[in-house]
Amino acid sequence: MSILTVGSVAYDDIITPYDKRSRALGGSATYFAIAAQHFHQISLVAVIGEDFNYADEKLLIDKKIDLLGLEKVAGRCFYWKGEYLANWNDRVTHDTQLNVFESFKPKVPDSYRDLPYVFLGNIHPSLQTEVLKQMNGRPKIVALDTMNLWIKETRSDLLETLKGVDVLLVNDSEAQMLSGEHNLMDAARTIAKMGPTTLCIKQGEHGALLVQNDQIFTAPAYPLCTVVDPTGAGDTFAGGFMGYLASTGNLSFENMKRAVIYGSVMGSFTVESFSVDRVAAITREDIDARYNEFVKLTHFHK
Amino acid sequence: MSILTVGSVAYDDIITPYDKRSRALGGSATYFAIAAQHFHQISLVAVIGEDFNYADEKLLIDKKIDLLGLEKVAGRCFYWKGEYLANWNDRVTHDTQLNVFESFKPKVPDSYRDLPYVFLGNIHPSLQTEVLKQMNGRPKIVALDTMNLWIKETRSDLLETLKGVDVLLVNDSEAQMLSGEHNLMDAARTIAKMGPTTLCIKQGEHGALLVQNDQIFTAPAYPLCTVVDPTGAGDTFAGGFMGYLASTGNLSFENMKRAVIYGSVMGSFTVESFSVDRVAAITREDIDARYNEFVKLTHFHK
Repeated sequence: MSILTVGSVAYDDIITPYDKRSRALGGSATYFAIAAQHFHQISLVAVIGEDFNYADEKLLIDKKIDLLGLEKVAGRCFYWKGEYLANWNDRVTHDTQLNVFESFKPKVPDSYRDLPYVFLGNIHPSLQTEVLKQMNGRPKIVALDTMNLWIKETRSDLLETLKGVDVLLVNDSEAQMLSGEHNLMDAARTIAKMGPTTLCIKQGEHGALLVQNDQIFTAPAYPLCTVVDPTGAGDTFAGGFMGYLASTGNLSFENMKRAVIYGSVMGSFTVESFSVDRVAAITREDIDARYNEFVKLTHFHK
Repeated sequence: MSILTVGSVAYDDIITPYDKRSRALGGSATYFAIAAQHFHQISLVAVIGEDFNYADEKLLIDKKIDLLGLEKVAGRCFYWKGEYLANWNDRVTHDTQLNVFESFKPKVPDSYRDLPYVFLGNIHPSLQTEVLKQMNGRPKIVALDTMNLWIKETRSDLLETLKGVDVLLVNDSEAQMLSGEHNLMDAARTIAKMGPTTLCIKQGEHGALLVQNDQIFTAPAYPLCTVVDPTGAGDTFAGGFMGYLASTGNLSFENMKRAVIYGSVMGSFTVESFSVDRVAAITREDIDARYNEFVKLTHFHK
């Protein structure tokens, strides 16, 4: 039983301190799907325009991603132009064109409506809710990614969506903004009352933190990768996390810890290239080898 | 055989987003010594002025710190006034008065000259070198802390000092500035050529990274503490790290991993209060309990 994901499929123009790339295949759903398909079947809900390259469609097909929910409409794909500054931490958006996303209304195909695993990628919360509404009953697990824009501008919509969500995947400042709490443990308690009983904080180059009730797990970041382009690291973290959970069918906290490590592994591959180049090229063997390196890096005898 | 440490003993005026404290006992040597004495005997080399409180001297005596190398001279103690901004990451220095530190020339007592463990706290590198010169031969292990000021303003002095150093304890931006390398693995390789074959990166709220040749260990930060005042977290990290190494006499990489966790534990206690209040009040049992929490927080079954 496949993982349903909704999000953006986009073209990005990206400038980094060392290099740049035009019309890089991007978007939250793309990154998520390419990462998660290493672990499990993916069913996509998204929209593309007439400018979507056949080579990019072929990539999704080759990865055996179910594209029944991928709508192709008149107009151009979602477009983002961004630049990473010299310290890599600050990102400036030069241009955003919603294009076909502007009038997007997610339509969940009948064959997707009983899927047990749902990942709501970072898009307007009312679109995320729309997907949940079209499901037959509550899925086994729903995870959601969001961002400061939606937390600030569409808070009531987001709070409505969160009622149907089990796992919130955000960064530390987003968790702080949503909860109004500086301490991340307090933030997790406040967010649990909104719906998501599990909070997964992606801290990029600083690792990840998983909180569920009184259980906590912290994972450091992978220190060995060469950063070419950080775009998509969070989405592919989510892809590794959800992909591993779905592939094992085990939603225990102990298994979620392993899922966090797989998420970190996928994020670390993603930043090694522009677009999904690296994360699409690797094999499950590469992934498991890096997982084992992670185990070694963090292991110590008490 | 005791740990020799040289550094500052100071009074700090500290302002945080929530509170403030005047004339807080501080300084790199104070923080290091109070943390490290939980593990091992400490021999202090530092200077104080006539305004040093008897209560503070009594604290050092009660902790059985060897004060033979603590010089008391005419004038006032080193003074620092600083403020932490709302995000806790940015620190503004409002005032620094070197006072008795201005003419400080470390004098290593005869009884200290054969000590096997040396920690050179964050002071001018020529003073750090002065201490090493007075030792009888090369100690078993020398660790050094420094900062951006010395890396930038007194680079050649620092490079001279580093020749006699085994472990460099700095934060990521300092390692990058010293080595000219952005990637921390490349930074470690460059720094190893300067002398310190082990690089320990203290990343504060983001954990720590230990690199020695091709061996790497990463530790996340302790997510549970309430931050009252971050001052001294790095010095007490060093205290836990060196204290544990000295108490075990085992300088293997595997044991250094445990030392990094003990360092993180001591840093996490330090930030829970102003000055050394918390780190002086805890017991070895408290430390070991938090160490075990750390093990639990980071443990996962492969």
